[in-house]
Amino acid sequence: MAKPLRVALAGLGTVGAGVVKLLDENRELIERRAGRAIEVTAVSARDRGRDRGIDVARFAWEDKPGALVVRNDVDCVAELVGGSDGPALALARETLAAGKSFVTANKAMIAHHGLELAEAAEKAGTALKYEAAVAGGIPVIKGLREGAAANAITRVYGILNGTCNYILTEMEAKGGDFADVLAEAQALGYAEADPTFDIDGVDAAHKLAILASLAFGTALDFDNVTVSGIREVIAEDIAEARALGFKVRLVGIAEADDDGLFQRVHPCLVPRKHPLAHVLGSLNAVVAEGNFVGRLFFEGAGAGEGPTASAVVADLIDVARGEYGPAFAMPFARLAKAGPVDAGGRRSRAYLRFAVHDRPGVLAEITAAMRDANVSIESMIQRGGANPSEDSDDVVNLIIVTHEGPERCVADALERLRGAQSLAGAPMWMHILDL
Amino acid sequence: MAKPLRVALAGLGTVGAGVVKLLDENRELIERRAGRAIEVTAVSARDRGRDRGIDVARFAWEDKPGALVVRNDVDCVAELVGGSDGPALALARETLAAGKSFVTANKAMIAHHGLELAEAAEKAGTALKYEAAVAGGIPVIKGLREGAAANAITRVYGILNGTCNYILTEMEAKGGDFADVLAEAQALGYAEADPTFDIDGVDAAHKLAILASLAFGTALDFDNVTVSGIREVIAEDIAEARALGFKVRLVGIAEADDDGLFQRVHPCLVPRKHPLAHVLGSLNAVVAEGNFVGRLFFEGAGAGEGPTASAVVADLIDVARGEYGPAFAMPFARLAKAGPVDAGGRRSRAYLRFAVHDRPGVLAEITAAMRDANVSIESMIQRGGANPSEDSDDVVNLIIVTHEGPERCVADALERLRGAQSLAGAPMWMHILDL
Repeated sequence: MAKPLRVALAGLGTVGAGVVKLLDENRELIERRAGRAIEVTAVSARDRGRDRGIDVARFAWEDKPGALVVRNDVDCVAELVGGSDGPALALARETLAAGKSFVTANKAMIAHHGLELAEAAEKAGTALKYEAAVAGGIPVIKGLREGAAANAITRVYGILNGTCNYILTEMEAKGGDFADVLAEAQALGYAEADPTFDIDGVDAAHKLAILASLAFGTALDFDNVTVSGIREVIAEDIAEARALGFKVRLVGIAEADDDGLFQRVHPCLVPRKHPLAHVLGSLNAVVAEGNFVGRLFFEGAGAGEGPTASAVVADLIDVARGEYGPAFAMPFARLAKAGPVDAGGRRSRAYLRFAVHDRPGVLAEITAAMRDANVSIESMIQRGGANPSEDSDDVVNLIIVTHEGPERCVADALERLRGAQSLAGAPMWMHILDL
Repeated sequence: MAKPLRVALAGLGTVGAGVVKLLDENRELIERRAGRAIEVTAVSARDRGRDRGIDVARFAWEDKPGALVVRNDVDCVAELVGGSDGPALALARETLAAGKSFVTANKAMIAHHGLELAEAAEKAGTALKYEAAVAGGIPVIKGLREGAAANAITRVYGILNGTCNYILTEMEAKGGDFADVLAEAQALGYAEADPTFDIDGVDAAHKLAILASLAFGTALDFDNVTVSGIREVIAEDIAEARALGFKVRLVGIAEADDDGLFQRVHPCLVPRKHPLAHVLGSLNAVVAEGNFVGRLFFEGAGAGEGPTASAVVADLIDVARGEYGPAFAMPFARLAKAGPVDAGGRRSRAYLRFAVHDRPGVLAEITAAMRDANVSIESMIQRGGANPSEDSDDVVNLIIVTHEGPERCVADALERLRGAQSLAGAPMWMHILDL
């Protein structure tokens, strides 16, 4: 039996504690699978005395994470601190520079600095692994890097944020409004006290940029992900979508072609027959379309102590087995540079909601703008508003679904309506996922 | 750039030709991902002159597959011949004995001889890879061997045969009977001229035995898979299942605990809210439940030229990268021996269909047998049969759904009814997948 892989853990929050629990509980099985034991030798965290439900006294303690790297009883550092820069990034650089393996769950850091770190790992001939950074316990990094490696991937997309999916599917199940369901999700621990990164789509954007790089062989390009979150989704959107045969989901989607790289996170309407429509609660799911394999679909828990620990330890097992290579599937120097594409040329159907004053002439103003922008209307729904009159202050929602057409035409129509007297607020635009 | 991986292909049927096409079409991308080129140098097949839609003149030709092994321009043999024994097995043994890598799509051979071949690969320090043997293009071997490697897997199950799923979902969509839909599937090429291995569940059983070994760390045990196919499923089963909130699917399921290993392939009723209920047409899907990751779900194309070639070439890429290890996730000597468990102790709900003569006393006879066997009835449906009489020759179907209870009680009830005058044929028993 080979020598154990000796691991240092930086960070003993939920995930760090989960990794310790997993390595304890599945110790014998992991040793059989990895061909050697995986042993935590040293740890670093903020508060040594805190009760984490695990015995940390058996590990060497370092107050500063950087001190883990230079210990001669550490082969591999697992970073579970978080944050795109700061201590996490410093630790990553130091670990790789020292020629030791580095495993992380840190999506923000990989999205921003993954290319630099991949280069450092390659130069040092060591491992940079980040399965836990995307879609929690689902082995989707491995699925793209290795499982689908024979394919030219034309499109990768999915539900990449469990908090948003929980909120949207709760709104769907209970008919509640966004703010109420968010408050409930926070009370239950499904949403952070500060949920900004989740509900505004930034967390999903980090993950999408990573998936896109792996799938297409392009250099990471987080800055060119277009992002909109779910704050503006109201109960009526979900009800109207359902009536039209759709579910509302926050979808991250990336496509690559000769024109460049398209990356967008946005709430959209998913047809009921698409597998993403059946992804409920805090689950995540990823779809990859390859030119030989066709459509692959992966679903599972995208966050939480157990699933995230599962992904971190899967990476440690790969390191222990010596089964790893370039972090982004190919040597970093061979990743292509792809510029962002103009989304205006994309053809799709649009779901539009206008909050309108319930007065004569409103429909004429909106439909004229659509006509002038060359947007063809597939269906239009306006409910309620029984007695319209010139001086009515009632606001009702007008829902329009367009035929497929270039997105720039829809943008043009909305531009023409900017400041229009008919509108009582900014329009809501969701794309329809006709895939 | 490292030297190319030089591959010999044994077998140039659909899959072999697909591998050549894939390596041609995605050549540049694969070289970037694998870190070296993957080149076919030699091939062997039955008929040199046959038109396969690919140019084979550029490859060295061998009439006998065994001759590929000894060529000094071959590092790795891909076996795409099929058959559990015979030339395929001989080729596998010779390749591994020669210390060359071996990649196969042959589920029957792996199910029967995988342990022997894993041992041979380990002794030679070379790769035995078989991603294409289970669920076609879905990287589920990798998902279990590596992605979920940190987990104790308690259960693995799924839809493992695309022909059966195509037939069942066509019956569902069109209300047709088994024989008609099978004939249609054969005409369309979705079912073989001799579909026995598919529709009787043997093909799914091969795959299930492989998944179970990987998931549980137990030695392959194909002989103890209990198998029943879909020949006895009638349109009415599917309609009644739908009315009760279920879809009918051929499910392979394996569980391991201290009592031993349970492996079964059987048509069963899947609740509409379960992801397997949404797997349509010839798709395959696999669910794995881990003690930390929870439920993982993988879906994709389970057969066909493109998806199978995708899996074969993914294995070749792993070989080219040098990222491989023991074939069944751990050294073969560490695989546990687990005996089969008695299914009688399993608790489940049962769907039972009795073809009964439409006469007085029939219900009493059947329900008495259920009572005497301690089977509790949850619901009972009998439709039609307007005018029962002593001398009626009408046969109607009586559907019973039981409450959860030990399977041996249901078996006992059916045994008590063997040869009963009420019955016009053998009862149909499907398990309900309450997972």
